[in-house]
Amino acid sequence: MLTANENYYKLDKNYLFKRIAGRVEEFKKAHPERDVISLGLGDVSLPLAPHIAAAFSRAAAEMSEKSGFHGYAPYYGYDFLKEAVKRLYLSRGVTLGEDEIFISDGAKCDLANLTGVFGKCRVVIPSPAYPVYSDANVISGNAVTYIPLDDESDFLPLPDYLDGKSALIYLCSPNNPTGAAYPKEVISRWVDYALRSHSLIVFDNAYEAFITEDDKPHSIFETDGAISCAIEVSSLSKRAGFTGIRCGWTVVPKTLKVGFDVNALWGRRQSTKFNGVCYAVQKAAEAALSERGIRESRSQIDYYLKNAAVLSSACKKSGLKFFGGVNSPYLWVKCPSSLTDEETFDLLLNRAGIVCTPGSGFGAGGGGYIRLTAFSSRENTLTAAERISAVFK
Amino acid sequence: MLTANENYYKLDKNYLFKRIAGRVEEFKKAHPERDVISLGLGDVSLPLAPHIAAAFSRAAAEMSEKSGFHGYAPYYGYDFLKEAVKRLYLSRGVTLGEDEIFISDGAKCDLANLTGVFGKCRVVIPSPAYPVYSDANVISGNAVTYIPLDDESDFLPLPDYLDGKSALIYLCSPNNPTGAAYPKEVISRWVDYALRSHSLIVFDNAYEAFITEDDKPHSIFETDGAISCAIEVSSLSKRAGFTGIRCGWTVVPKTLKVGFDVNALWGRRQSTKFNGVCYAVQKAAEAALSERGIRESRSQIDYYLKNAAVLSSACKKSGLKFFGGVNSPYLWVKCPSSLTDEETFDLLLNRAGIVCTPGSGFGAGGGGYIRLTAFSSRENTLTAAERISAVFK
Repeated sequence: MLTANENYYKLDKNYLFKRIAGRVEEFKKAHPERDVISLGLGDVSLPLAPHIAAAFSRAAAEMSEKSGFHGYAPYYGYDFLKEAVKRLYLSRGVTLGEDEIFISDGAKCDLANLTGVFGKCRVVIPSPAYPVYSDANVISGNAVTYIPLDDESDFLPLPDYLDGKSALIYLCSPNNPTGAAYPKEVISRWVDYALRSHSLIVFDNAYEAFITEDDKPHSIFETDGAISCAIEVSSLSKRAGFTGIRCGWTVVPKTLKVGFDVNALWGRRQSTKFNGVCYAVQKAAEAALSERGIRESRSQIDYYLKNAAVLSSACKKSGLKFFGGVNSPYLWVKCPSSLTDEETFDLLLNRAGIVCTPGSGFGAGGGGYIRLTAFSSRENTLTAAERISAVFK
Repeated sequence: MLTANENYYKLDKNYLFKRIAGRVEEFKKAHPERDVISLGLGDVSLPLAPHIAAAFSRAAAEMSEKSGFHGYAPYYGYDFLKEAVKRLYLSRGVTLGEDEIFISDGAKCDLANLTGVFGKCRVVIPSPAYPVYSDANVISGNAVTYIPLDDESDFLPLPDYLDGKSALIYLCSPNNPTGAAYPKEVISRWVDYALRSHSLIVFDNAYEAFITEDDKPHSIFETDGAISCAIEVSSLSKRAGFTGIRCGWTVVPKTLKVGFDVNALWGRRQSTKFNGVCYAVQKAAEAALSERGIRESRSQIDYYLKNAAVLSSACKKSGLKFFGGVNSPYLWVKCPSSLTDEETFDLLLNRAGIVCTPGSGFGAGGGGYIRLTAFSSRENTLTAAERISAVFK
């Protein structure tokens, strides 16, 4: 008989976001009259910015003309998009080679597939974290060490208690789910640790466009030494509303010193197991990284950040302790009194018609917290803020 | 130190299509005056059919409106597209459940990622074959048994000499690269073998729209028993010119009897490591599977099949032995006299300015053959046919 990859059975039975969708579905069926506001899933709500949508639609239409048709895309992305990515990094003082940029169909796939180019390895993941880091490594059969975070450390992970052995280290800033943006010195300490221990940092900066404070790096490559020990997984999903379009990129320096040529192996992985990103999608991505695209996206991000401020204000008024909401679309809210995060989820759903995400869905370190997102409409966010104030008055 | 997945180093140094691209690039640089015609890569050349391009462009534009914006797509695809796939199968007498269809960003990714849900397993692959089957299994560390094919068997693989142990079996019809479309009884024998040996057939029917003869099944599920022992990986790339758009689907029956619940594990894989296909791409795919889309695509396929007939005629006139070209866009041509396939590649490039694909790129069983594709323009195909006749006169 054929056998399964048994590691799949070590995963939680239900992927967090699917489980929550199920609970909400049930509630809506039982209470069709209730107006449910989702501050749960991290999905954007504003329509695609005009400049981006125009480029997208135009490129799609072009495909019907002999001169505009595009067949197989280059495995690692079109030059025009890689150039746009290079310019973005240059604006932060980071110079990348074209062969260090791999255009992808989004950060999730890259984060999930990366483990496949490594042999069995030790893995370090802060807890809470985006579940894909740990799921991908469980599926690969890797041993994961979790760094439990809490409010005493402001949910900022540090390498202080690690054993100095080389590992794959996952960091995310601004963080999903905690909303914490890592200051320069936190990132520097991780880079120093990685260099010392010959570790590789997988840096997820999917939310970097939300950074408003100057002392928070947008890219790990702004930190000295990072080009020897880090790769960066980036996304257009939150930056420019691409959750449903699917485009991102991963930067794999050719200068890494982590035991083998990760750039070459990732290149091999992508050319062997992936077939490039849709031309029209890459044209939309190029538009998103143009001056006008960035300006239009900036106003969307400001809109979401204003939502975050609305939610922050409601939490403050209700005496709820929380993190994030400043350089991030997420608020990481401590559950009131003795409630667990699942109980708080139920309370918010039943009493306020609000969907949040229970923190333990992001790992054991997320217990006792819920995540609220600022991705809803202003109107819904204002209503949700009122309801939160009413429930926790 | 971190270590690589050592299996990557067991792969051929250069992925076939990249290597050939390099050789052609060199030739073009050395001979800028020569008009090079590519009958190499299996990429389409006709622009996207009007109905499909219109749906694609419209859906992209919709994304800029509040009412038309779409965020994260369902992991397994939108219902509207799964319904269209169901209708396509129904037209062949095959009834599928909605939860047996997984929309993907193309057959290549699915074929490459499938091995990840299996434990170490025995694998059977005909040789020659699409390199992804074997590459994906080498990367997974699986032991591969190749069934060498030749002209005596008309390049039709049969399970006669296998040992009856359960395995993952890759079949592709109409075949890439040989162009052979498997008759009903060949597929039946494989299904019988798979049922007897508790094997799973991975059936790649990416080229099924090219079938013109009634006795060649379009889907393996037209064969009794296949729903217990086969999955089918399908693509819109060649059917409707989606090579650069990226959309396909994989059918994983819930009724498989192969040792574990492959449907559930593949679902878990896709929800954990994949994030769905772009909404606008799925609307384009829906249009491609509509009556009008199929009609428009049909005329494109007929155009390519006419190209195949032109090449067939040239090969015949030149006394070249070949297979395919009837239910397939590929001609599988035996190298003349004592030439190897690499020598024939060089001969065609140097003497005729034609790019073909050396058969050994598809595995040892492909040695001594070259593949020609019918995906070029009519004009180029006619010129290429003349040049072939001139070289092999």
